[in-house]
Amino acid sequence: MHQPLSEEKVFKDPVHNYIHVQDTVIWRLINTPEFQRLRRIRQLGTSYLTFHGAEHSRFSHSLGVYEITRRIISQFERGDFPDWPKEERLVALCAALLHDVGHGPFSHSIEEAFHMNHEDWTCRIVLGDTKINAVLRQVDDKLPQKVAAVIAKTYDKPIVVNLVTSPLDADRMDYLLRDAHSTGVNYGTIDLDRILRLLRPHNGRIVVKESGMHAVEDYLMSRYQMYWQIYFHPVTRSSEILLRKIFKRAKELFKNGYEFGFLLDPLPDLLKGELTVEQYLMLDESLIQTVFSQWKREKDEILSDLSSRFMDRRLYKYVEIENMDTDTIDSIREALKEAGLHPEYDFEIDFPTDLPYDVFRQGGSTDNQILLLGRQGEVSEISEVSEIVRSISGIHRGKYHMYFPQNKLNAVKDRLPAEIRNYFVKE
Amino acid sequence: MHQPLSEEKVFKDPVHNYIHVQDTVIWRLINTPEFQRLRRIRQLGTSYLTFHGAEHSRFSHSLGVYEITRRIISQFERGDFPDWPKEERLVALCAALLHDVGHGPFSHSIEEAFHMNHEDWTCRIVLGDTKINAVLRQVDDKLPQKVAAVIAKTYDKPIVVNLVTSPLDADRMDYLLRDAHSTGVNYGTIDLDRILRLLRPHNGRIVVKESGMHAVEDYLMSRYQMYWQIYFHPVTRSSEILLRKIFKRAKELFKNGYEFGFLLDPLPDLLKGELTVEQYLMLDESLIQTVFSQWKREKDEILSDLSSRFMDRRLYKYVEIENMDTDTIDSIREALKEAGLHPEYDFEIDFPTDLPYDVFRQGGSTDNQILLLGRQGEVSEISEVSEIVRSISGIHRGKYHMYFPQNKLNAVKDRLPAEIRNYFVKE
Amino acid sequence: MHQPLSEEKVFKDPVHNYIHVQDTVIWRLINTPEFQRLRRIRQLGTSYLTFHGAEHSRFSHSLGVYEITRRIISQFERGDFPDWPKEERLVALCAALLHDVGHGPFSHSIEEAFHMNHEDWTCRIVLGDTKINAVLRQVDDKLPQKVAAVIAKTYDKPIVVNLVTSPLDADRMDYLLRDAHSTGVNYGTIDLDRILRLLRPHNGRIVVKESGMHAVEDYLMSRYQMYWQIYFHPVTRSSEILLRKIFKRAKELFKNGYEFGFLLDPLPDLLKGELTVEQYLMLDESLIQTVFSQWKREKDEILSDLSSRFMDRRLYKYVEIENMDTDTIDSIREALKEAGLHPEYDFEIDFPTDLPYDVFRQGGSTDNQILLLGRQGEVSEISEVSEIVRSISGIHRGKYHMYFPQNKLNAVKDRLPAEIRNYFVKE
Amino acid sequence: MHQPLSEEKVFKDPVHNYIHVQDTVIWRLINTPEFQRLRRIRQLGTSYLTFHGAEHSRFSHSLGVYEITRRIISQFERGDFPDWPKEERLVALCAALLHDVGHGPFSHSIEEAFHMNHEDWTCRIVLGDTKINAVLRQVDDKLPQKVAAVIAKTYDKPIVVNLVTSPLDADRMDYLLRDAHSTGVNYGTIDLDRILRLLRPHNGRIVVKESGMHAVEDYLMSRYQMYWQIYFHPVTRSSEILLRKIFKRAKELFKNGYEFGFLLDPLPDLLKGELTVEQYLMLDESLIQTVFSQWKREKDEILSDLSSRFMDRRLYKYVEIENMDTDTIDSIREALKEAGLHPEYDFEIDFPTDLPYDVFRQGGSTDNQILLLGRQGEVSEISEVSEIVRSISGIHRGKYHMYFPQNKLNAVKDRLPAEIRNYFVKE
Repeated sequence: MHQPLSEEKVFKDPVHNYIHVQDTVIWRLINTPEFQRLRRIRQLGTSYLTFHGAEHSRFSHSLGVYEITRRIISQFERGDFPDWPKEERLVALCAALLHDVGHGPFSHSIEEAFHMNHEDWTCRIVLGDTKINAVLRQVDDKLPQKVAAVIAKTYDKPIVVNLVTSPLDADRMDYLLRDAHSTGVNYGTIDLDRILRLLRPHNGRIVVKESGMHAVEDYLMSRYQMYWQIYFHPVTRSSEILLRKIFKRAKELFKNGYEFGFLLDPLPDLLKGELTVEQYLMLDESLIQTVFSQWKREKDEILSDLSSRFMDRRLYKYVEIENMDTDTIDSIREALKEAGLHPEYDFEIDFPTDLPYDVFRQGGSTDNQILLLGRQGEVSEISEVSEIVRSISGIHRGKYHMYFPQNKLNAVKDRLPAEIRNYFVKE
Repeated sequence: MHQPLSEEKVFKDPVHNYIHVQDTVIWRLINTPEFQRLRRIRQLGTSYLTFHGAEHSRFSHSLGVYEITRRIISQFERGDFPDWPKEERLVALCAALLHDVGHGPFSHSIEEAFHMNHEDWTCRIVLGDTKINAVLRQVDDKLPQKVAAVIAKTYDKPIVVNLVTSPLDADRMDYLLRDAHSTGVNYGTIDLDRILRLLRPHNGRIVVKESGMHAVEDYLMSRYQMYWQIYFHPVTRSSEILLRKIFKRAKELFKNGYEFGFLLDPLPDLLKGELTVEQYLMLDESLIQTVFSQWKREKDEILSDLSSRFMDRRLYKYVEIENMDTDTIDSIREALKEAGLHPEYDFEIDFPTDLPYDVFRQGGSTDNQILLLGRQGEVSEISEVSEIVRSISGIHRGKYHMYFPQNKLNAVKDRLPAEIRNYFVKE
Repeated sequence: MHQPLSEEKVFKDPVHNYIHVQDTVIWRLINTPEFQRLRRIRQLGTSYLTFHGAEHSRFSHSLGVYEITRRIISQFERGDFPDWPKEERLVALCAALLHDVGHGPFSHSIEEAFHMNHEDWTCRIVLGDTKINAVLRQVDDKLPQKVAAVIAKTYDKPIVVNLVTSPLDADRMDYLLRDAHSTGVNYGTIDLDRILRLLRPHNGRIVVKESGMHAVEDYLMSRYQMYWQIYFHPVTRSSEILLRKIFKRAKELFKNGYEFGFLLDPLPDLLKGELTVEQYLMLDESLIQTVFSQWKREKDEILSDLSSRFMDRRLYKYVEIENMDTDTIDSIREALKEAGLHPEYDFEIDFPTDLPYDVFRQGGSTDNQILLLGRQGEVSEISEVSEIVRSISGIHRGKYHMYFPQNKLNAVKDRLPAEIRNYFVKE
Repeated sequence: MHQPLSEEKVFKDPVHNYIHVQDTVIWRLINTPEFQRLRRIRQLGTSYLTFHGAEHSRFSHSLGVYEITRRIISQFERGDFPDWPKEERLVALCAALLHDVGHGPFSHSIEEAFHMNHEDWTCRIVLGDTKINAVLRQVDDKLPQKVAAVIAKTYDKPIVVNLVTSPLDADRMDYLLRDAHSTGVNYGTIDLDRILRLLRPHNGRIVVKESGMHAVEDYLMSRYQMYWQIYFHPVTRSSEILLRKIFKRAKELFKNGYEFGFLLDPLPDLLKGELTVEQYLMLDESLIQTVFSQWKREKDEILSDLSSRFMDRRLYKYVEIENMDTDTIDSIREALKEAGLHPEYDFEIDFPTDLPYDVFRQGGSTDNQILLLGRQGEVSEISEVSEIVRSISGIHRGKYHMYFPQNKLNAVKDRLPAEIRNYFVKE
């Protein structure tokens, strides 16, 4: 059964000043081991190796997402808008809070390396034999299913799904603000108060009052800048490449029966690809970093070199390149191999648009659209109305980068054909 | 030999906006594994369990200390003050940057548990067989000794020691600002620009121009508030107590030959108290947290309970108490023991003034004094001039708190004599 | 009759982000000419001559005071506290908004020069034949009387008076924040959210929950710093002295039948001391500055010199002095007179504690006390509990300053006896 | 002769924290009556009637422009760049400081009404019989001519002109930051430190290092938002329209020999269009507001109505319209006239792009271009490189608005043909 707290509890927060907790279930969820684990997973993965301030955790971010959602709902309740189903308040708050609970350590890299998906894990944690599940069930036996359905976007009240995941959701608003605050860049300074005040529930969607168009434009420009300045920074990409190569090497060695100098539970099952929920929850960035620290002393040179590089931040260098055809790439790989390097570890070509971040894009399903609500109740997609959004949406900005270990390349440089060697020289 | 960088390098910083690196040696020191390790040690230890924003590392703080020191020296150079020995610039910058390099994970707790001292370790790292040592020696064979002497406060140019350690040093100024920024409290907002502009080298001391008295007052009041609001927060103390008890239990078990379910290098030598520099450098908060995570499954119940509590943030509760005489404390311990608890683990009395933080205090050696420089070159100690500093200095504010595991206490409550039981009830 | 606005209106505010207007009467009051006049009266009088950023008006401040009051009341309503009389909401909001409406141009100086009192004028404006009066009467014929009674502190619901005027009222909280924001000093950064959340209506008083003690300490230290760094700055005092001397000279000339080169309504009646409400409302800083600009060309040299000095910011110089006995002051005046100066215009001794600002002081009537509310409902005065408040309260910090026109003094210096001359030399 | 100050003087500033004055001539210029007059002219004209925080003066802004210029030059000097002519430092600083000294009250409106140009007046003030001229001549007899030439863009060192006026100059950078700070919007938060660090003198131009492209993009997006959110806000436009109509009416009445109830020097000569420098310098916003206050009582109803409206902020209402052909406009005017209104006063059509603000536009002379400096010294115009700039540059965003006095329109509504009446209804 739902219980309000006898007295509101607050968390001091650098972004929202205070996070207000008013429900017993929210308080209890925060205090579960599964939620506390998020303290050991950084919000921005390896970005701290580029922007040293980016040390904040998904724990802090999740509280922020919860707080923004709480404020949106509370505004909907004050406005008494008929399109907002008031009985969904708690489902929405729980889903907002728990949204990221399935993230693994260095989430994007580990997901790619092991073909995992954090939303699936969130659902498994919510539905599995966990404290989170128990806390939810104390309120209502069906609450775990409801929360998981919201996260899986299959919940039968689409407005709740839309509130928790949409191009203008609490998640994105919190991370823009929080990442900007932590790194010290000022691109992420959006007018949160104004946007929140202008959100409206409308026909199963969260829309924005037309008068908020400029604030939304500003938000989209902030996002655009944050993606290209922070999230896709080539140095961060370089550290992610290292991470993926470490995981790749470990999997390969494990498969080949290599005897690791150091392993600890649940690594073997991770490498096998057979994690239980309980094991998954043991994964955090402390564990990964501890393992890599120990692997600095592995006898497999590739693994120990990659691990040292990551831990001591000796990242791969990069050069920006024009779009490169497959033949050229192949010939580079070939040349590196002949020169004695391992192209599958010593070389990478990267094009950041294939990252899981979704810069706002015109078109696509309406779920990905930001809708404006006019005075007569008519709805329009923002890029129909805003020339600036139309302009941004069309921009395809990614650049190809080639990554490699400078010292190794230097050692074999003379053995490379001149036309290949030239690719590795920064103009 | 000293080399300026061909082009200044900058780090984006949330507190100082940019950190400016102008010397090759500073750039190389930052890129040593020993300095990079500071990314895995939080500036505020367990404070993140009280203020979730307190997730920033000693790496970020050390860059900030370096930056403030660089600005002070650059101001001294611009002003061409005769009392500043210009040839000491690099020694001072290196010492400022490396000042915290000897900190261990959860520094204050681990130091207390294992009778270590981070300044000693800083010196051992600077003087030992480390990359830091090698980088320093590239400039000058005597640079490691010089830097270590500054940190040990034995350097023969006292002004350099005073610049790096004094009640108004770059260390304190950075942490007030940075801790305030991360936690979101606004007590730490000091007028850094003004204080820096008014610092002067004078007779082997860094002093403040008299006209800066109010800015210094404000700085001291900020410190005062930060200590009592953040650093000495009883919830943070509670988590530190848990940490110390975990270490205590592990030492005890190790000494008694207990067979640990999980141990990894260099834990055995830590528990023995015989760490080499190389081993010490393996210690970081990732490793400690990973060990504690594994210890949640130790068969020793005390160790596993304490480890779970710390990792899952189920901290000891506390009640504030009046100063308590030893007899009362003894009788409480006795009663707890008779009721079946282990008072050495299930009970703690804490009085925060015995922490290693040094709130400004009147008197003592002049090294701990803030001196004001008058128009005629006369020097006075600030509390002689400032009534507000005099007032603050006299205040003795600490309060006694009693810490204990609420659930265990509840379980035995009925077995406690009423007068003992009452101590555990929050008024 | 009271009417909520069909849709909330907001003002973008640099301090509170948004000011929320929800009642028709508040919206209409803001749009009266009498309230709009506050745009032409600076919040900090002549402080902009010391801190150029201090250009914000009483209009902005009044909106801020309203907004804080609105938030306090809305918190009281959400908490459903029995000691808050809900029917007083509108009276309190109107009084908060209109609180400063009786301020004249360069308020403190003009009040002193013409023996006026801005609270009296506020009441006269609220009760007189004004738009404000008409707007209030549209709601309720008795509303003007009620609002005036709150401002005069005679209202029969003391809690409303206490909400609007007390040592921790919305007025003080807004000006600390706003003055800090405008001038750029950081002394005024108080934790408004926390203080507001901890306020409670209690027995006809607004009190603070005990757990907010530290936030209140911080607020009082901020105030202390703001008073001494901003409000009592000797350069600001110097400009206020000029202002008073201009008014004094004009009154004297007017009384003696001097024919002014420039006068405009309502100056003659101001100089006579016979202003109607309508005339009073014509007074603003534009008018005063325009008059002084014209008076730069008056044939009376004292008036034209003083007016030029004020408009062109050629302020009197000052020297800090030890407390001075009346005999010494008399002998200085005498010497200046003999040297050909006019001591009543060319000389001033100032001791800032006699300003109308009320730094928090222990003791006095309980209206001036900040009360803390303990867990058992017991109430204590803050300085009983807080050692830091006790310390600040006892401090008597003012210093005597002597002000004079440097150029005039230089011209007669040789004619002054050496012992008199020495007083005018800055050590 | 140029003299550095014996000790640097600082002004506390809310945007730059401190303004540093290091030269005697700068200090003296700030203390001239002509520069002090800028305290009585708001930076943003009538914007304070839309954003109440916009109360800051051109005095504050001018100090900010000076400070940014000082920092740019000081960076050029530290970098020892050959393309920066070091001997031009003082000319550039004086021009930066004095750049706005010729602004009149409510500058854009008064310039339009009286066909004046603030740059011409700046030159006349610098070259005329003023204190500014005298202070400049104390350094060098030719300094006034040099400074005026920089402002008139005829100076023979084009890099100095470019430093003081270009699409990325200190003027624009300060106003974005300052206007954002004062109004409380966050669109103007540009990364000033980064932009300044990346500016380079290059072939008579100030260019930006290529690596600063994103910071410049961010700056241009900030500008774009500030123009449309703040500078072109329709409510501000409405107040500017009132202002222009007041001036228009006064000129008309003056020309027709109307006997004003109130006039004061130098209004008659302003209305005649024959101001001397001395008279021009008497114009400030205090004087204009005082005049309008008095004109509320003029017997000419149009003048008194317009003046009341402006002073009491009863602005014209507006409706947004599609682009309107001249015939339609004529027929509206005709209908209003027939209904008894005065269309030349009671009606206005406004399209904000014809304002004197220059949103960045692609093309045009290279003086209006932002140039990027590549690694090999090659220079490219930013919109060639940045797709986002290209997108913004092409956007033509202005909207037509129709302004009118609602009450007057309501009074005659029934007399208007239906098709005309419909234009005045907000959709």
